[in-house]
Amino acid sequence: MDPTGSKLLVTAGEIVVEIMATQIGQTFLEPGPLVGPFPSGAPAIFIDQAARLGQACGMIAAVGDDDFGTLNVERLEASGVDVSAVARLPGVPTGTAFVRYAADGSRAFVFNIPLSASGHIATTPEATALLGRADHVHVMGSSLFSPAVIAVVEDAVRTVKARGGTVSFDPNIRREMLDSPGMREALSSVLASCDLFLPSGSELFLFTRAQDEEGAVAELLQRGVSTVVLKKGAEGAVHYDRAGRTAMPAFAVEEIDPTGAGDCFGAGFVSAWLRGAPPAECLQIANACGALAVGAKGPMAGTGTLAEVQAMIASAGGTGA
Amino acid sequence: MDPTGSKLLVTAGEIVVEIMATQIGQTFLEPGPLVGPFPSGAPAIFIDQAARLGQACGMIAAVGDDDFGTLNVERLEASGVDVSAVARLPGVPTGTAFVRYAADGSRAFVFNIPLSASGHIATTPEATALLGRADHVHVMGSSLFSPAVIAVVEDAVRTVKARGGTVSFDPNIRREMLDSPGMREALSSVLASCDLFLPSGSELFLFTRAQDEEGAVAELLQRGVSTVVLKKGAEGAVHYDRAGRTAMPAFAVEEIDPTGAGDCFGAGFVSAWLRGAPPAECLQIANACGALAVGAKGPMAGTGTLAEVQAMIASAGGTGA
Repeated sequence: MDPTGSKLLVTAGEIVVEIMATQIGQTFLEPGPLVGPFPSGAPAIFIDQAARLGQACGMIAAVGDDDFGTLNVERLEASGVDVSAVARLPGVPTGTAFVRYAADGSRAFVFNIPLSASGHIATTPEATALLGRADHVHVMGSSLFSPAVIAVVEDAVRTVKARGGTVSFDPNIRREMLDSPGMREALSSVLASCDLFLPSGSELFLFTRAQDEEGAVAELLQRGVSTVVLKKGAEGAVHYDRAGRTAMPAFAVEEIDPTGAGDCFGAGFVSAWLRGAPPAECLQIANACGALAVGAKGPMAGTGTLAEVQAMIASAGGTGA
Repeated sequence: MDPTGSKLLVTAGEIVVEIMATQIGQTFLEPGPLVGPFPSGAPAIFIDQAARLGQACGMIAAVGDDDFGTLNVERLEASGVDVSAVARLPGVPTGTAFVRYAADGSRAFVFNIPLSASGHIATTPEATALLGRADHVHVMGSSLFSPAVIAVVEDAVRTVKARGGTVSFDPNIRREMLDSPGMREALSSVLASCDLFLPSGSELFLFTRAQDEEGAVAELLQRGVSTVVLKKGAEGAVHYDRAGRTAMPAFAVEEIDPTGAGDCFGAGFVSAWLRGAPPAECLQIANACGALAVGAKGPMAGTGTLAEVQAMIASAGGTGA
């Protein structure tokens, strides 16, 4: 348990630097203007956001012994994340993600993740020590890209559940990732262990027979998930549990860069949920985190502090509308 | 043998994209302006330059099945390089090199090469076919970074030497690379097989007891190297063989970007040497290639065509001075 008495939140998964093309429609087939390296990786963005809200938290991950690893570790540490279980691996590069934007707002990537340090994470003695203090594990589906990483994540889930802790799960996947070896099975396995499920849009239906919202949610609650939070981007979010349904509109903000918004939303929700806040308050904080994230360029540029989140909620009249 | 009757030049080694920081003194510890991806990799720059001079040539290499691989293969193909032995490896990233520049002109890098596609090159059936037609192999010391790659290079050298072909060798290493497993031995082995040795500055002394220029050259010629070409950057180059010494001053040009200049110099020299040009002409072409390379931003941006090289030589009065 965390000495302050608050719960300790842990995540495990990929850390990367992100390099962004600066012009809409730019390709990676010829040189052009880029900006970076930005600290990134879905679980890293999540845990950075949680830390900046004051949540006690740590991360199990690996980076290379290079500037890109230093950049990420320094960022997480500055935000207040326990980085004792972030390994630095000599001779292995820190993961990279190059992203470019099409005129329709869609993104395309060139990744180096499975063969980067992120593909070599392990349940090290430091990770075991962190998990020994953890109350909650958050899993990003994007992290389940290789058998080695799946093993670390499943081990973390098992350890924390065995001690009476809780698990949240954000599928956070692209359709083409479902074909990675073992990924579909790993997603099912994590879903079966999770208390709090945070799908975006059609991810709700990834593992349900029902293909309508109410039906899919009923099926998930039946299977033991206690809470489903459906992320709908600019249309807000909906909370479901056995007590009922709570919908919350999104804050009206200009979208500068969507990268990381879902991760920040999740961190806001999980942090509030862990201290027992009611659904409407959890959703409001989560929506504010998502809104701050889309309003800033760079994956972690928009992770807001508690004061920034509270200011956004107050400026919108406290309703999130 | 090449159907045109000219000799076929082959190299083997790393292909990468290069991402450049645009501001002097920029670090990779925070986001900043970058430009890229540029096609790069020392042997790739070398072979691109050779092709643009009209030399029949091909490369044994590997890239990922990603935009960065496409970028490189398209570039080499457009320049006239035989890319039949450049493998595209699914699930493995194309190599990357991030470079930044200090105020004193020195460079610092973040590499992903040994664990990229470049670390997975192999003597494929396509490589064997290419080597079956090759008259000359050029080796970059920078390519000897792993046992797998060393095996491919040594195999190429052996195959071509066994058929009466020739070998050129540019050490092209940074001191810290000498500690890679097997690299020092591989450099010695290639040196023992090479006809044409192209060291830069103090690389001349890497494998000699003598630590003065004349003594080191004598030692190398004694050991079976037929020609030594010492690259001295802005001070030009010196050619040594059993017949004597030929020095050639560099062309006076403003240095925009030194990356690739030594590789282009080598390609100019080797191409001229393969068609039996006399030392002074080989040096002049090599110097012109080097000068064009330092005058352009981007590793392959300055690989000149035969017409551009001839124009530079003509504009300097044909003396290279």
